[in-house]
Amino acid sequence: MSTDPLVVFTPSGKRGHFPSGTPILTAARQLGVDLDSVCGGRGICSKCQITPSYGEFSKHGVTVEDDALSEWNSVEQRYKDKRGLIDGRRLGCQATVQGDIVIDVPPESQVHKQVVRKRAEARDIVMNPSTKLYYVEVQEPDMHDPSGDLERLRMALKDQWALDNVHADLHILQSMQPVLRKGAWKVTVAVHLGDDENAPRIMHIWPGYYEGTVYGLAVDLGSTTIAAHLCDLQTGDVVASSGIMNPQIRFGEDLMSRVSYSMMNAGGSDEMTRAVREGMNALFTQISIEAEIDKALIVDAVFVCNPVMHHLFLGIDPFELGQAPFALGTSDALRLRADDLDLNIHPSARVYLLPCIAGHVGADAAAVALSEAPDKSKDLVLVVDVGTNAEILLGNTEKVLACSSPTGPAFEGAQISSGQRAAPGAIERVEIDPATKVPRFRVIGSEVWSDEDGFDEAIATTGVTGICGSGIIEMVAEMRIAGIVDAPGLIGSPEQTGSPNCFLDGRTYSYLVYDGTAKGGPKITVTNRDIREIQMAKAALYSGARLLMDKFEVEAVDRVVLAGAFGAHISPKHAMILGMIPDAPLDKVTSAGNAAGTGARIALLNREARGEIEATVKAIHKIETAIEPRFQEHFVNASAIPNSVEPFPILNSIVTLPTQTFNTGGGGADGGDSGGRRRRRRG
Amino acid sequence: MSTDPLVVFTPSGKRGHFPSGTPILTAARQLGVDLDSVCGGRGICSKCQITPSYGEFSKHGVTVEDDALSEWNSVEQRYKDKRGLIDGRRLGCQATVQGDIVIDVPPESQVHKQVVRKRAEARDIVMNPSTKLYYVEVQEPDMHDPSGDLERLRMALKDQWALDNVHADLHILQSMQPVLRKGAWKVTVAVHLGDDENAPRIMHIWPGYYEGTVYGLAVDLGSTTIAAHLCDLQTGDVVASSGIMNPQIRFGEDLMSRVSYSMMNAGGSDEMTRAVREGMNALFTQISIEAEIDKALIVDAVFVCNPVMHHLFLGIDPFELGQAPFALGTSDALRLRADDLDLNIHPSARVYLLPCIAGHVGADAAAVALSEAPDKSKDLVLVVDVGTNAEILLGNTEKVLACSSPTGPAFEGAQISSGQRAAPGAIERVEIDPATKVPRFRVIGSEVWSDEDGFDEAIATTGVTGICGSGIIEMVAEMRIAGIVDAPGLIGSPEQTGSPNCFLDGRTYSYLVYDGTAKGGPKITVTNRDIREIQMAKAALYSGARLLMDKFEVEAVDRVVLAGAFGAHISPKHAMILGMIPDAPLDKVTSAGNAAGTGARIALLNREARGEIEATVKAIHKIETAIEPRFQEHFVNASAIPNSVEPFPILNSIVTLPTQTFNTGGGGADGGDSGGRRRRRRG
Repeated sequence: MSTDPLVVFTPSGKRGHFPSGTPILTAARQLGVDLDSVCGGRGICSKCQITPSYGEFSKHGVTVEDDALSEWNSVEQRYKDKRGLIDGRRLGCQATVQGDIVIDVPPESQVHKQVVRKRAEARDIVMNPSTKLYYVEVQEPDMHDPSGDLERLRMALKDQWALDNVHADLHILQSMQPVLRKGAWKVTVAVHLGDDENAPRIMHIWPGYYEGTVYGLAVDLGSTTIAAHLCDLQTGDVVASSGIMNPQIRFGEDLMSRVSYSMMNAGGSDEMTRAVREGMNALFTQISIEAEIDKALIVDAVFVCNPVMHHLFLGIDPFELGQAPFALGTSDALRLRADDLDLNIHPSARVYLLPCIAGHVGADAAAVALSEAPDKSKDLVLVVDVGTNAEILLGNTEKVLACSSPTGPAFEGAQISSGQRAAPGAIERVEIDPATKVPRFRVIGSEVWSDEDGFDEAIATTGVTGICGSGIIEMVAEMRIAGIVDAPGLIGSPEQTGSPNCFLDGRTYSYLVYDGTAKGGPKITVTNRDIREIQMAKAALYSGARLLMDKFEVEAVDRVVLAGAFGAHISPKHAMILGMIPDAPLDKVTSAGNAAGTGARIALLNREARGEIEATVKAIHKIETAIEPRFQEHFVNASAIPNSVEPFPILNSIVTLPTQTFNTGGGGADGGDSGGRRRRRRG
Repeated sequence: MSTDPLVVFTPSGKRGHFPSGTPILTAARQLGVDLDSVCGGRGICSKCQITPSYGEFSKHGVTVEDDALSEWNSVEQRYKDKRGLIDGRRLGCQATVQGDIVIDVPPESQVHKQVVRKRAEARDIVMNPSTKLYYVEVQEPDMHDPSGDLERLRMALKDQWALDNVHADLHILQSMQPVLRKGAWKVTVAVHLGDDENAPRIMHIWPGYYEGTVYGLAVDLGSTTIAAHLCDLQTGDVVASSGIMNPQIRFGEDLMSRVSYSMMNAGGSDEMTRAVREGMNALFTQISIEAEIDKALIVDAVFVCNPVMHHLFLGIDPFELGQAPFALGTSDALRLRADDLDLNIHPSARVYLLPCIAGHVGADAAAVALSEAPDKSKDLVLVVDVGTNAEILLGNTEKVLACSSPTGPAFEGAQISSGQRAAPGAIERVEIDPATKVPRFRVIGSEVWSDEDGFDEAIATTGVTGICGSGIIEMVAEMRIAGIVDAPGLIGSPEQTGSPNCFLDGRTYSYLVYDGTAKGGPKITVTNRDIREIQMAKAALYSGARLLMDKFEVEAVDRVVLAGAFGAHISPKHAMILGMIPDAPLDKVTSAGNAAGTGARIALLNREARGEIEATVKAIHKIETAIEPRFQEHFVNASAIPNSVEPFPILNSIVTLPTQTFNTGGGGADGGDSGGRRRRRRG
């Protein structure tokens, strides 16, 4: 048995015997304990701070004496005097083993520290970014053994950090020589660690020890908005978040109209490419001003987007995506340089685009898969990213299926007579009194219900302007519970429904929600046409999910995750009454927020996650709804509210839906006419 | 023993038994016989043409019957009818083995064909370019198994050509989809095969089978001129050669003045970088117009240059090269993209810069090493690239030493009173009559000697304008033989020399070569100051070579190779009389022409040669003359003509040099005053 002192690291539990005098950092490295260092053990960076514990540790079978670590040496003492150290902390590279010792590695000293996520069911983000900082001491030039400054810098990276085959971009070659001399041959370099396409590359170089950090961008490039998170690549912190409208909107609200624009206008595709890249650059400027950082410190960027945006961003004409067989130009992940895409960040920042799953299921869906990890779920999870196009994933550790379904923009308030985007003044919550059949509601920006005192004051600045996407879902679901709209989707007459708010509006009935005309405001109603739009949208969504369940050969899912900003605002109960999502226990329907954005952030902060999602995407089974005969059947069934054939037993145990129907056989306005497949709308 | 027919390939001699019906191309591939194919055996490209031989072959122990190959099938017949085939040729992919057969692979059907070089001692160029063409048939998109067009193209390259991990530049992604459809999923792609820094990449894509070729540039970027060869990357042929003056000349004639310019002028380095890149682009436009090709078909370019040009071309301030320790920014070979250097060829053409050997010994010297291959020479060879700066290599298979020596521009006619660049009208050949001590000469552009009838007519258009570099070498050597200049370098008086052409010119004597003043032309003389300039230049060159001989511990070399355009015009005898080069048999002094340019061409045409020269350069032992004490001693000795201490026995067996000296002890104009080390001039 070794007589050398025992070193026990927590929380890893790793342990080993080391000769007296061994620095803690050395011991940690030899044991594979995750202890950070940028300066390589020179007592400069303090990234290797550790907390020694003293006394009896029966759990570890060790007693730690007061002199188990070395006295403070001059380097350590100077660091403490100059910069300060938290009480009880030591520098792992300076403190040496003298006796048996228990060493705690605090989270901030771990390279692969975890970035905390709020949701228990979501995957952890472990820091492992593509670009890291390294402090090196470079050999000076020698006329007797001539070599380039870069070659000696490369040698230093190899000798001091075991980084092999590191190359440099041209701009580094152009700036490196004065920096090496300014730092007296001691420099800090940011190294992109490379991938299957590219060797590792020096991205940036600073004289001496660089106190700062480098940044990365996680960008969710949506049809409507572009959202970016600026992340510190050392801590993983989001230091700023910002968003803008996608400037391509002027070429078409939804994706299909943009594809049409490029088909109808020579150079239209290039025009849209320029627009989105310019918008992106404006966003990057905005976010770096907000964070007060130099844009040139942004060395890595990850993008997620749907296939049409993916192609338009890359400058690939989306023509083929507008027609069967919906062939993507490329589906694999892409590794590019910022200047390939005219992005004004670090001149040769690395750009990573997640893989696309299929012609209608993009890198955004891949990012959702990375964030929600259905492939790692033991129970069967349905992940729905609700947008103009819904991406749907169904899976567990056994397999994952994916499809997309053209829900159209109704869930975003478009094509609804009183619909609007989610903004102050928009109705977002609705209740219909079961007795009076009169609605009450709340608008975004106010906590007061419309039938409560102070409502008029609360909405004084915003007014009541329309109904947003989540509001229309609640509205239609409430109308269904209250017996104002029947299962096939027909609004009843005042006599049929007993509601004074129903009124004849042309050949069908509408439902009055709010009359602001007396005050110069709008009259907000739900028309039977609005109901039809919602029916079609939710039928598209449901039938996509149902098709995946068929393929999985299941009749029910264990849980449902609603992704997307919109998903965060949907009431699970109302969504289920509407028949948007399959029957499931309400507490098993959760919101993942902007899962695509989170997936982008994971890929940014953890380079291994990139390879992982690439493998996952390859393994995902893609279903093209356009060519699945059963999709039509599911769509027709799902046009009814909630569904004309499926039982929804869990829902029925919570609510009892009226069975009355309003169709007196007179008109063509029954639920059936919406069953035909609509033009695929993507956006 | 196999009863399958025997197939013998010539000239390789490879042989094997193959089942009846095996295509010849298949047999060749299985035996590793070098037989080309772009279309992959589809009878389209005809690159696999072979010549079957019939009859008795006792050498191979085989008798070939008339029916040893299959009948012409429809594909082969169609090809012959449409495009024609040389009599006796067959398509290797269509003709199949039926009996024992002898197959000759003609040179043009070999992938790794040899490019003929005129000189026996020079290394062969074997075709193995970085970028090759491949014809593939790509699987069509399938909605049931969605994947990107690029991914299916990659799969085709892998399945049909065993090319793995091939990526595509963005511009390919942007143009690929219509090309695939235009070619009905049959395309030809140009693939750059990658290197240690970059994965293989698709450079270009054409619908169907592409009949054309792709091109590469071998560029010799000199201080004074930029010369480029445009090469066909399939045949290796030089399809056009062109050159321009280096536009940087306006910032300084020689390199050191350009380095000074960058030190004295803010942004001066960038200005020179822009100038050389603009000049380069003008040259590339010129050469592609000359060759009548689209510049976008130039997919590869190799550059060789001295270290200062290397840095200025890359945009690295050459500041450090102007002072000890002469630290290069980078010495290793560089792999870049054309757009990194603002070069207007193929948008993402690959650029390769050969490695530099040391701060004064550049990629041009590396290219000379690649072309002349001293490391592969069994006898000890001295390779001298004579320019404003001389690069000197000495070596054999055992080891190679290198240094550079600042000869200054005297050998290019600069700093010589009647000196000029090599151009029509410049004196290039000189003889001095041993009896009369009067010179006769020939000028560039005329074959008539100045004392022959018709001389005046012959030079009517050019005149006699000055003396070029090779002319001044002959001149001084002839003066030395004729006893007009003595060993220390002093021109004698008419009395001392017996020449009426000697005349007092200030404190020293000059020698009249030609008096054109009567006809309004120049008076061409050689001053004693001119002799001093040549002494210093040749002493620098010789002492560099001698230093390498010291390091090699030899007193003589087996052969001398004079590289550089200038080297081609030097008379070996005169150079040896001058003491420019070490004593050697005259027939062992040869000219290699533009060896740097040839080296660039080798690196362009053979990708393996790149790795080879990189390894060679690493192994070359670099000698920095500035810090070698013996260099000064050699320089002083070599200031004499030919040398004050070295015996030159071979030279002395050919010529007898006068031993008279002209110094009467009066002045300081003896040979010794030039022995001090001059400011290092590079250019």
